[in-house]
Amino acid sequence: MLCYPRTIRLADTDAAGVVYFAAGLSLCHEAYEASLQAQGIDLKAFFRDRLFAVPIVRGEIDFFRPLYCGDRVIIQLVPEQTGESRFEILYQITPPENPALLLMRAKTLHICINPDTRQKIPLTPALQSWLTQFTPPSNEKALT
Amino acid sequence: MLCYPRTIRLADTDAAGVVYFAAGLSLCHEAYEASLQAQGIDLKAFFRDRLFAVPIVRGEIDFFRPLYCGDRVIIQLVPEQTGESRFEILYQITPPENPALLLMRAKTLHICINPDTRQKIPLTPALQSWLTQFTPPSNEKALT
Amino acid sequence: MLCYPRTIRLADTDAAGVVYFAAGLSLCHEAYEASLQAQGIDLKAFFRDRLFAVPIVRGEIDFFRPLYCGDRVIIQLVPEQTGESRFEILYQITPPENPALLLMRAKTLHICINPDTRQKIPLTPALQSWLTQFTPPSNEKALT
Amino acid sequence: MLCYPRTIRLADTDAAGVVYFAAGLSLCHEAYEASLQAQGIDLKAFFRDRLFAVPIVRGEIDFFRPLYCGDRVIIQLVPEQTGESRFEILYQITPPENPALLLMRAKTLHICINPDTRQKIPLTPALQSWLTQFTPPSNEKALT
Repeated sequence: MLCYPRTIRLADTDAAGVVYFAAGLSLCHEAYEASLQAQGIDLKAFFRDRLFAVPIVRGEIDFFRPLYCGDRVIIQLVPEQTGESRFEILYQITPPENPALLLMRAKTLHICINPDTRQKIPLTPALQSWLTQFTPPSNEKALT
Repeated sequence: MLCYPRTIRLADTDAAGVVYFAAGLSLCHEAYEASLQAQGIDLKAFFRDRLFAVPIVRGEIDFFRPLYCGDRVIIQLVPEQTGESRFEILYQITPPENPALLLMRAKTLHICINPDTRQKIPLTPALQSWLTQFTPPSNEKALT
Repeated sequence: MLCYPRTIRLADTDAAGVVYFAAGLSLCHEAYEASLQAQGIDLKAFFRDRLFAVPIVRGEIDFFRPLYCGDRVIIQLVPEQTGESRFEILYQITPPENPALLLMRAKTLHICINPDTRQKIPLTPALQSWLTQFTPPSNEKALT
Repeated sequence: MLCYPRTIRLADTDAAGVVYFAAGLSLCHEAYEASLQAQGIDLKAFFRDRLFAVPIVRGEIDFFRPLYCGDRVIIQLVPEQTGESRFEILYQITPPENPALLLMRAKTLHICINPDTRQKIPLTPALQSWLTQFTPPSNEKALT
């Protein structure tokens, strides 16, 4: 389980004075990238690989309270493998001083494909190690 | 029902070569803004009003095919009032030449609030007119 | 000379209520992309080509008046070749109804390189045609 | 003098595989925000204040080498007061392990105004303290 600290920046906000809704998903993706790096994955190569790609095919986000420029938050990330070629990530965004106060919650669904054929392929060994590293025991599922 | 044409721009893409997933929701929000303007709503005032705000409290997006820089798409928007203070918008993104080929689909949930108290308030008359204008007859629901 | 119409979107703004300064340069880049498309250039291929790349090595922008969500502007683009491997683009952003009222002005400097070696190479024939198409006569310079 | 560490994120990049040029200026603005916070300035209030605003009226950026997703950089910020109502900030972006290797350089010009009248006003005391804190001795200028 990874906890990624982030300060809300002016570029994350819009004229309504709070975080632009789509930027909430970008915050979450940063935590995903940080977790890949923590596992030793080279992001430059990962996102340009010729042999595999792991596009996000679904994203969802809920906002419980507004976030303002300068706010410090913690993004907690919990991945879970949900098939041979796919995993989900659940994100919970809270204030650093109150981990029980949910500000936002998001989920992304990632599918591993061959970038040329766009057909599903099994998750790479590096992604499987990353899943082993960051998935809490209670979320592990038997995949047969 | 509004059809908003949009060309994918380099700023919408990322190093994986396709539209960055969170940018998909921004495309949809542009269509929402265009529909408000089509109804005569002044966006500058709308997003900074002291008496009401209509934050998005939930967003979700599905990607069926990758979108590349330069691609031209049509974003079709269908709103639906789902309560005294709330409405949803369903977005379908297709190529201009093939309205049956779904590239992306998204949904946003908007709740009308008093920006000071953050309490729910009924949708404003302008938003109700906008809903009347853009909701297809089949989506109208009795709200009692 | 290309005139690119654009409406300011919520995603372009920040919590100060106006266009986020760096987003001003994105608006200009959109006009550049539109001019390349107008010349028949396939943007997906152009920005991922293995044989050449045309990175922006310098950008500058001046803001004369604030821009708000919903504002409609015209971005006028004037390119000029300034060397065998380089060209500049000057952008002027005005309201549609008053072409004499400058809202923003920007400039970008582009250099054609081999993406592998990052060494300068001459502008491609397609870019030279584009320059011929969009450069006003008064800006043409003898390059020997 | 502030040194702000930043990792390049996928959202900062574009389909050309490197940092989108306008995103370079956003990186710099983050360092500015971090320096204001380091001085105890509340960013939410700062960017929405009714009595003053400090819009950026000019920005410029030079790119010396491409930046890729996952790259770690240090943004060094040097402000300088250049008039009663104005200051500039110079930014230098380098790799953490080689402070002599310039990757990007940028400059922003900020003018303090009354947001209602858009007329210049003197820099606020908080901004003057911030300037005192972060301006190196050699950059101080006599302002008469």
